[in-house]
Amino acid sequence: MEARSFSELRKVLTDMNPADIAEQMAGIDDDKSLVIVFRLLPKEQASEVFSYLEPTEQERIVNGISDRELASIVNEMFVDDAVDFTEEMPANIVKRVLQTADPDTRKAINQLLKYPDNSAGSLMTTELLRLKSEWPVSAALNYVRRSCMELESITYAFVTDDQRHLSGVVSLKEVLGSDDDTLISEIMDDDVIYATTTEDQADVAERFKKYDVVSMPVVDGEMRLVGLITIDDVVDVIEEETTEDIYKMAAMAPIEDSYMSTSVFALARKRVVWLLVLMISATFTGLIITKFENMLTAVAILTSFIPMLMDTCGNAGSQASVSVIRALVLGEVKFGNILRVIWKEFRVSIIVGLCVAVVNFIRIIVFYYMGMYQLDAGQNIFLIAGVVSMTLVLAVICAKFVGCTLPLLADKAKLDPALMASPMITTIVDAVSLLVYFGIASLVLIR
Amino acid sequence: MEARSFSELRKVLTDMNPADIAEQMAGIDDDKSLVIVFRLLPKEQASEVFSYLEPTEQERIVNGISDRELASIVNEMFVDDAVDFTEEMPANIVKRVLQTADPDTRKAINQLLKYPDNSAGSLMTTELLRLKSEWPVSAALNYVRRSCMELESITYAFVTDDQRHLSGVVSLKEVLGSDDDTLISEIMDDDVIYATTTEDQADVAERFKKYDVVSMPVVDGEMRLVGLITIDDVVDVIEEETTEDIYKMAAMAPIEDSYMSTSVFALARKRVVWLLVLMISATFTGLIITKFENMLTAVAILTSFIPMLMDTCGNAGSQASVSVIRALVLGEVKFGNILRVIWKEFRVSIIVGLCVAVVNFIRIIVFYYMGMYQLDAGQNIFLIAGVVSMTLVLAVICAKFVGCTLPLLADKAKLDPALMASPMITTIVDAVSLLVYFGIASLVLIR
Repeated sequence: MEARSFSELRKVLTDMNPADIAEQMAGIDDDKSLVIVFRLLPKEQASEVFSYLEPTEQERIVNGISDRELASIVNEMFVDDAVDFTEEMPANIVKRVLQTADPDTRKAINQLLKYPDNSAGSLMTTELLRLKSEWPVSAALNYVRRSCMELESITYAFVTDDQRHLSGVVSLKEVLGSDDDTLISEIMDDDVIYATTTEDQADVAERFKKYDVVSMPVVDGEMRLVGLITIDDVVDVIEEETTEDIYKMAAMAPIEDSYMSTSVFALARKRVVWLLVLMISATFTGLIITKFENMLTAVAILTSFIPMLMDTCGNAGSQASVSVIRALVLGEVKFGNILRVIWKEFRVSIIVGLCVAVVNFIRIIVFYYMGMYQLDAGQNIFLIAGVVSMTLVLAVICAKFVGCTLPLLADKAKLDPALMASPMITTIVDAVSLLVYFGIASLVLIR
Repeated sequence: MEARSFSELRKVLTDMNPADIAEQMAGIDDDKSLVIVFRLLPKEQASEVFSYLEPTEQERIVNGISDRELASIVNEMFVDDAVDFTEEMPANIVKRVLQTADPDTRKAINQLLKYPDNSAGSLMTTELLRLKSEWPVSAALNYVRRSCMELESITYAFVTDDQRHLSGVVSLKEVLGSDDDTLISEIMDDDVIYATTTEDQADVAERFKKYDVVSMPVVDGEMRLVGLITIDDVVDVIEEETTEDIYKMAAMAPIEDSYMSTSVFALARKRVVWLLVLMISATFTGLIITKFENMLTAVAILTSFIPMLMDTCGNAGSQASVSVIRALVLGEVKFGNILRVIWKEFRVSIIVGLCVAVVNFIRIIVFYYMGMYQLDAGQNIFLIAGVVSMTLVLAVICAKFVGCTLPLLADKAKLDPALMASPMITTIVDAVSLLVYFGIASLVLIR
């Protein structure tokens, strides 16, 4: 590049994988050099590399190339990739794209842009393999051979009637494996798994996983075939949905872009709401402490176990809630299983609670003899360690119970279980464990 | 079923999707009825439904059918599905499967069973489309038409030399779209994205996403083509890996099976280790409180803010850590970006910290005038609210700093960032926020 040996660079680039070229190009800081490298790519490869680039780089390139070059890239791209690209661009570039693209491409892009974000319609490509049911295999194969180069996926072909209503599906494998004079209607399957344009993309992804399919036709409200979703787009949807779940579980509203391209202000906004809600709810935990202030003054050492109790029970509760939320997402658990889940978590919590309690009892005694705790006259370290450990057992059982039931109830009430996860549960569990703690302490220690 | 109208049931089943049948069959509690329903299925559909069943149901059916029936199912299944099934079965069933399967199938299963769990080899199927580079398209298509029905995926064909070394890849689309006398060598791409048998499945999944491919050939140590991984298996891997990450972030060792099929004992074991570690580390937070006991006795109201401070800072820290961990997994952030990440989180933490602090200040004053806090003589609620709010700002900044740097450092040190997530960070942040709290309080309140 620096030696301006462009023909050599071109040769190297031609042999490279488009995804790798895109990765390398993202590292070029100078806009002019970026456009030069891009122009070195042969036409077909150029549009492929372009699809792999991040929106920032796409914009930098578009600003540096002519309308004719832009038109050639857009016309060459698969329609769904062109739409993805257009959606990320500012208005002036969108206008340029639509003005320069050829009429067919423009129509297809325009149509897809109209579907709401995160709908099946916005995910699909309009280029798909259509066959007629009355065709014999030989005619179908001739048609496939003539049209296949413009299509994204030919793994499945779709059969429509004269009104473009979806009536069947047949794998290309089946077509190839059948005799020349077999009719498509004989080998097609009329029980098609399909999506509708307005359906949420998360539901479509769910269906892909359930039926283990690699592509799914998309129909409009009148069952007319309008597009095709391929599994590589679904992989992206699954990742997006998972990121959203993970963000919600960590008490954040999900961000739309990647972490690095989200502004400081947007990040702060996504995070502050939950922090405020949880701060306010945590003050009630504080009020419980205020209520038992006299006891804490009388047996001062009790205060020092509060963080440990809160943390341990909070963790125990989120272990249960996260397990159940993930099982809900993966379809392993339903609300109908609530009793089995509670019974399971109950037994787990007894084992876990006893382990933690025993270790904690020994730890307190050891720390005491190491001189790390001071007691007032008349206080017995065994009694105090017993109170703390008994609290641990009971509070862990409560925590696991709250942790496993809340997500299931949320799901039943059509709320998002991930939103009810760790943060909310921590606050509830904190309050519960302190109440158990002070309850047991006043029974045992205060006479 | 109850009316014993089997022929009708059979008709209904034949029209249903295998995944739906499998779902319904999981609901049949009686082993005999389950086997009866399964026997109603036509042979080909039977093996497909069988692949969709959970291991529990597979085992119940295998125990109720003859060796001949078992052999027919296994021979009919795709090899990778047969291996998945065999891996989940107890030893006696594995033996029966291998004894009854036909020699070719047995050899293929045996070979795949030898690859370590979670390796590319364990994920692949051995059935794939091989072409010779010297064949013209017409010959290749003839070959495809004869052999395709036994293959799982024919979207890509692979070209090998006489020693079975992988030398190229060509999409079936390209083959179909080319003239009859074009040679495969002219249209094949010799720059193949491949996996090796012993490679970790997570790395393979990474590569699938990066290059947006739908299948990937697998080679052995000598670059000989031995199998094919299709994207539907990769979707399962991605889900598995994400579940592992989510479990680790919630302080649990990942489970191997689904939540419902993991035993109580196994669940307890996966959870108790982290609970113990975190409990022990939380005692140090407790010791900090013990150290400042005198101050807490002097200004008793300070105790009641401890849970709120710990929770808020813990949440602020895990927000940052979870964002960074997810960005690492998605490849959006690298260790090299650490300064940009810190600068970003620093600005976010100032905005978020100030918001939380202001709301908290007002809340304390309001609660005070509502009579929810009692002060001793000589104490000023504005001063106390100021101390708490100032702590919030500083502790939130520290929490976000710890939260965003730890995962990046872990990643750099080749440790798993998810393991360093929320739980560990909460403990650190708890200690830090208490130290800040008592530090500011002793400066301002104690004269």
